[in-house]
Amino acid sequence: MDAAPQDAAPDRWSSPPPSLADYERAARATMSEEALAYVEGGAGDEVTLADNVTAWRRWALRPRMLTGASRVDPGVTVLGVARPHPVIVAPTAFQRLAHPEGEVAIARAAAATGTVMCVSTFASAGPAGVAEEVPEVARWFQLYPFSDHGATRTLIADAARLGYEALVVTVDRPVLGIRERERRLSLRDPAAEIPHPETATADAAPAARLGQIDPDVSWSDIERFAAESELPLLVKGILTAEDAELAVAHGAAGVVVSNHGGRQLDTVISGADALAPIVDAVAGRVDVLVDGGIRRGTDIVKALALGARAVLVGRPVTWGLAVGGADGARDVLEILLEELVNALALVGCPRAAELDAGFITRAPWAGPA
Amino acid sequence: MDAAPQDAAPDRWSSPPPSLADYERAARATMSEEALAYVEGGAGDEVTLADNVTAWRRWALRPRMLTGASRVDPGVTVLGVARPHPVIVAPTAFQRLAHPEGEVAIARAAAATGTVMCVSTFASAGPAGVAEEVPEVARWFQLYPFSDHGATRTLIADAARLGYEALVVTVDRPVLGIRERERRLSLRDPAAEIPHPETATADAAPAARLGQIDPDVSWSDIERFAAESELPLLVKGILTAEDAELAVAHGAAGVVVSNHGGRQLDTVISGADALAPIVDAVAGRVDVLVDGGIRRGTDIVKALALGARAVLVGRPVTWGLAVGGADGARDVLEILLEELVNALALVGCPRAAELDAGFITRAPWAGPA
Amino acid sequence: MDAAPQDAAPDRWSSPPPSLADYERAARATMSEEALAYVEGGAGDEVTLADNVTAWRRWALRPRMLTGASRVDPGVTVLGVARPHPVIVAPTAFQRLAHPEGEVAIARAAAATGTVMCVSTFASAGPAGVAEEVPEVARWFQLYPFSDHGATRTLIADAARLGYEALVVTVDRPVLGIRERERRLSLRDPAAEIPHPETATADAAPAARLGQIDPDVSWSDIERFAAESELPLLVKGILTAEDAELAVAHGAAGVVVSNHGGRQLDTVISGADALAPIVDAVAGRVDVLVDGGIRRGTDIVKALALGARAVLVGRPVTWGLAVGGADGARDVLEILLEELVNALALVGCPRAAELDAGFITRAPWAGPA
Amino acid sequence: MDAAPQDAAPDRWSSPPPSLADYERAARATMSEEALAYVEGGAGDEVTLADNVTAWRRWALRPRMLTGASRVDPGVTVLGVARPHPVIVAPTAFQRLAHPEGEVAIARAAAATGTVMCVSTFASAGPAGVAEEVPEVARWFQLYPFSDHGATRTLIADAARLGYEALVVTVDRPVLGIRERERRLSLRDPAAEIPHPETATADAAPAARLGQIDPDVSWSDIERFAAESELPLLVKGILTAEDAELAVAHGAAGVVVSNHGGRQLDTVISGADALAPIVDAVAGRVDVLVDGGIRRGTDIVKALALGARAVLVGRPVTWGLAVGGADGARDVLEILLEELVNALALVGCPRAAELDAGFITRAPWAGPA
Repeated sequence: MDAAPQDAAPDRWSSPPPSLADYERAARATMSEEALAYVEGGAGDEVTLADNVTAWRRWALRPRMLTGASRVDPGVTVLGVARPHPVIVAPTAFQRLAHPEGEVAIARAAAATGTVMCVSTFASAGPAGVAEEVPEVARWFQLYPFSDHGATRTLIADAARLGYEALVVTVDRPVLGIRERERRLSLRDPAAEIPHPETATADAAPAARLGQIDPDVSWSDIERFAAESELPLLVKGILTAEDAELAVAHGAAGVVVSNHGGRQLDTVISGADALAPIVDAVAGRVDVLVDGGIRRGTDIVKALALGARAVLVGRPVTWGLAVGGADGARDVLEILLEELVNALALVGCPRAAELDAGFITRAPWAGPA
Repeated sequence: MDAAPQDAAPDRWSSPPPSLADYERAARATMSEEALAYVEGGAGDEVTLADNVTAWRRWALRPRMLTGASRVDPGVTVLGVARPHPVIVAPTAFQRLAHPEGEVAIARAAAATGTVMCVSTFASAGPAGVAEEVPEVARWFQLYPFSDHGATRTLIADAARLGYEALVVTVDRPVLGIRERERRLSLRDPAAEIPHPETATADAAPAARLGQIDPDVSWSDIERFAAESELPLLVKGILTAEDAELAVAHGAAGVVVSNHGGRQLDTVISGADALAPIVDAVAGRVDVLVDGGIRRGTDIVKALALGARAVLVGRPVTWGLAVGGADGARDVLEILLEELVNALALVGCPRAAELDAGFITRAPWAGPA
Repeated sequence: MDAAPQDAAPDRWSSPPPSLADYERAARATMSEEALAYVEGGAGDEVTLADNVTAWRRWALRPRMLTGASRVDPGVTVLGVARPHPVIVAPTAFQRLAHPEGEVAIARAAAATGTVMCVSTFASAGPAGVAEEVPEVARWFQLYPFSDHGATRTLIADAARLGYEALVVTVDRPVLGIRERERRLSLRDPAAEIPHPETATADAAPAARLGQIDPDVSWSDIERFAAESELPLLVKGILTAEDAELAVAHGAAGVVVSNHGGRQLDTVISGADALAPIVDAVAGRVDVLVDGGIRRGTDIVKALALGARAVLVGRPVTWGLAVGGADGARDVLEILLEELVNALALVGCPRAAELDAGFITRAPWAGPA
Repeated sequence: MDAAPQDAAPDRWSSPPPSLADYERAARATMSEEALAYVEGGAGDEVTLADNVTAWRRWALRPRMLTGASRVDPGVTVLGVARPHPVIVAPTAFQRLAHPEGEVAIARAAAATGTVMCVSTFASAGPAGVAEEVPEVARWFQLYPFSDHGATRTLIADAARLGYEALVVTVDRPVLGIRERERRLSLRDPAAEIPHPETATADAAPAARLGQIDPDVSWSDIERFAAESELPLLVKGILTAEDAELAVAHGAAGVVVSNHGGRQLDTVISGADALAPIVDAVAGRVDVLVDGGIRRGTDIVKALALGARAVLVGRPVTWGLAVGGADGARDVLEILLEELVNALALVGCPRAAELDAGFITRAPWAGPA
């Protein structure tokens, strides 16, 4: 009965939480209603939001046996650079809504796990803040082109200067989607309206820029950004083979197949369903990445089997952040990586880079083919 | 504690209700059991009633990027007339059941939003009443042919005289469908049996005519109506390519693909599913419109992508009317139009008139193709 | 306030119950647990029992317009005999479990509605009892062949003598299916174990014969029965085109596509799904009838559109019987017939005999074709 | 009120439990949380665990009539040996978790019902224990190859010496799957951590060997095992035609199509779905068996119709063991066998060995083909 108070306080779990779903549950219990509306919500009836997760389950695995499991190597090559694994932190705005340390904590988690972090134009800490606080993290810069072309040019130049290794231009947000969870709370500008004292000063500039995103970016702008920067440029937000072709034609080094986490237009197809035709169209000329609904190591296996080079993971990292700061975000990434290694061994393809379409099939439980 | 009483009374919502589903919920809390049975009910087990809404969700969107979102134009051309947008108020009878101002309030909402209103033969206010009270509304007249051919001829002649711009002949009600919600309340003639003092006098004539609808209208009658009137004639209630062909052959200027809101025969296909083969069969010779289950801007985008010129919206307008009279009906139309504009920008087709089948695909979540 | 007591007692429904589902609910509240287990139960996990009803919903209707609704004629020709409508009472055993008047009450209901009644070998009242009590009912005799061939021969001879117009030989019960609802109540022989005083004497003989059903009936036996009787012979319990061919080859005048109400073998296909290939195979050489899951007038329209001459209805008649004796059974049949007439008018095929496959299509809500 | 206490205690069921689902319910009420997590749990989100059961329901039966039901013979030939029926007890580890008598009780149940028992490398009682206690049981030995090749060789040699008739090499466990139910309870080594006094001593050796399973077994190892043993060798854990081909090429006498009860890698296909292509590829050269989700006699009929020689049943036997020891396990097997005999009679194929693909079809309720 003399145990120190900190001993008496039970951990959140008696053992480490086994899955990302546990982090989601815990984050829902931790975050404010406003932050949850922003982080968890999607457009319209959230059909696409839900389908992003279930779409991966419409693919089943065809495991091969006796291929060796003591030599598992999750390494992949993305944009010509060898990476220890195919997981990338997706760009997400205003992470201080989830935790006071925001993107900096995520950067520490990414660095600790060998994960590339894609930092948002609207990172609470700003691209410079992340680079200065966690210089060791491998980082890409997500760009929203602004109507003020000079400002855009500055952002692009800064990215290279700050050690960012790629430019990820988001093209699926000419206007903001209609997100009802936010509207019900009268949220329009989350950074301005969600009270979070720590972010008040630092975020003033980026938040004010939300209204300055250029609704009329064109493919020739993409070509110009690619030319202006020494960094490889990825176009993020592609869902059709036609647009992937255009991205290749206008100088992109890769595309991110994405529906913006189901936050923009409801009932659009998921990345999981859009991926294969885009991989076919691109035919290896540039790298194809995918995001949306990745919650399990098996989801990553399926994405790579369909031809993706890597996957971006957004909300789960925020759940980890909300629950436990940098430690929570790192734990989320580690769970995913442990699951990935296990899945590679059990699907019988110990080298992630060798996954192909032979390892998957349409899930019989999703209806007859 | 000295706040004025009106300040203490909270609005129904702390902010404008974000979607038509909110209006449906509110209308269910507002309307009488009898009025709800009439407005919300469908035939049989209401399989078709429910499917009208879900059928649109079996289509997914294929959004295109970087097509410009500052030039969104929802305008369409219907029956040769340019309209600011493709939304039309569907003909619905006895709207005073929902609100004392009935069709007149709807007409004001339609006029305020540039919406064509299709006025029912059984409008509580009558076609003359609507025309006189709200002369500025663009209006079509929905015709039930009566067994008394002279009465029918008078309705047709009156429509042109009262400024109606088209004749919409309903052909899917030779007899009344079996609607169990009404039967459980012993409703047979809603205008007669649902107590609503304001309608007592005005509606006596039209309600009495419910039993006089001609069960044996033929395609040659359609041809005669088209010849008798100077107005373009739309045939409403078509669900097969064969009947669309007959409508064209008998002088129709257009067809409305419709199952009467799921109120006539249960387990018939929805407009969303019937539309494409009819558009194919008609091949541009006449205009094709569709109704049933339109609840979102994305539904409208899908209907136009499938070849419809415009969509008719029924129950949601009644929900708005029940909740807030003319203001509620206008709010419903404005929500739908805001969603439409947003969807056009995000699907990457800023001009509604340019939507085509490339923007849609069978929803993967509805089962493998 | 002086209303007579009987006026104060509400009817079971304030208005006539609108659908067969209402009768099912009421029957469940009326019947004993034992009788319900016998009447409502099915084999195994009751997958087929449930699918019998939902299978009809996997067909959608394609209604045609302006074909005339004042001349609706539900009449059909079955086994060469003109009947006022295509509904037939399915053979069901031990109807006194549901109501003391049992099959005699059903016969009265059938006679009142112009419905053919198919009387079970195990009718509580016996084939003679029904014929004597309700001589005006059009009747068929359902035969279970017994291991005692002489007894079978007597049953066949009696049928013709007692005015039965057809012999319906059930071939899908070589042994009893495993029905868990009955087993949980330790029911093996419902007539013996379910207490129902009125049936005690009359049923002794047929109930004792349950164990005497011949498990080894062959197609040559069918040929012999057809030859022995002057009555046309229907083979009931066919689910494959192969067996339909054999029935034709061995002298049957028709087949009843049926899975015994889901009571024999779980996960077999439903009549609704088995029907079309059988109609194709038979190619008009004999009549094809169907049972299982008919609950709506639209179900009957679909069965006829798929090529059935008539449909058999079992459990719903028992529900009516349990709730209201002969009046209840008649009301069930009248509801179904009213729905049928309404559906014929609204599907645009006023003559039941003219329904064909053009009026149906695979239901889009059941998954893409 | 003077009834003896034992009379007052009701049996668990007033009659024998009719189905395996009843045993599952009872086992859940009987077993400890830890034992349940081990027995009932699966990998990941347990998509595959659930699908193992539902996959059989995506096949429907096409029953044939009048084929004779008094001559039902469930006998099959497996690995050249005639067996009275196609049910085999699947290898499952640590059965003393469920009941103190563990595998010995199961062996008694298997012997009593003519069932082959496949004894796990990690049987609580060990292969020698089972052979000594129940010498009359027909038995196969399930082998996990160890990294210590000498130990593996001893196990193989012992199997033949102890009267095992076949060697079943499990190939789908190079590493342990991620089973969250166990992790939530911090179970890593069930035999070590689940308190069960009786097993403490006997299980020390096998449990300690869990970590010694060789993650790098190869097809040439399989060939070596086959050569080293006089017993026929089955490869268990095959889900693709490619691996079945390899098994044949490397000397296997058969394959067991299996996903390890959904315990290894989530979202892999079920045995029910993997079976047909494997049977096609193997083309009769070796025997194909299947496990996973067998809960009904109809499931067995479907497996044999798809080309399996026999089925393995795991969890249901453990449920029976947990509920009633050897008697419970025997009752489970008897229920399944009674259902099998009934299904053979009713599907119209009285001889199990004659089942073929004509008796099944894709279930219409699982979506259009």
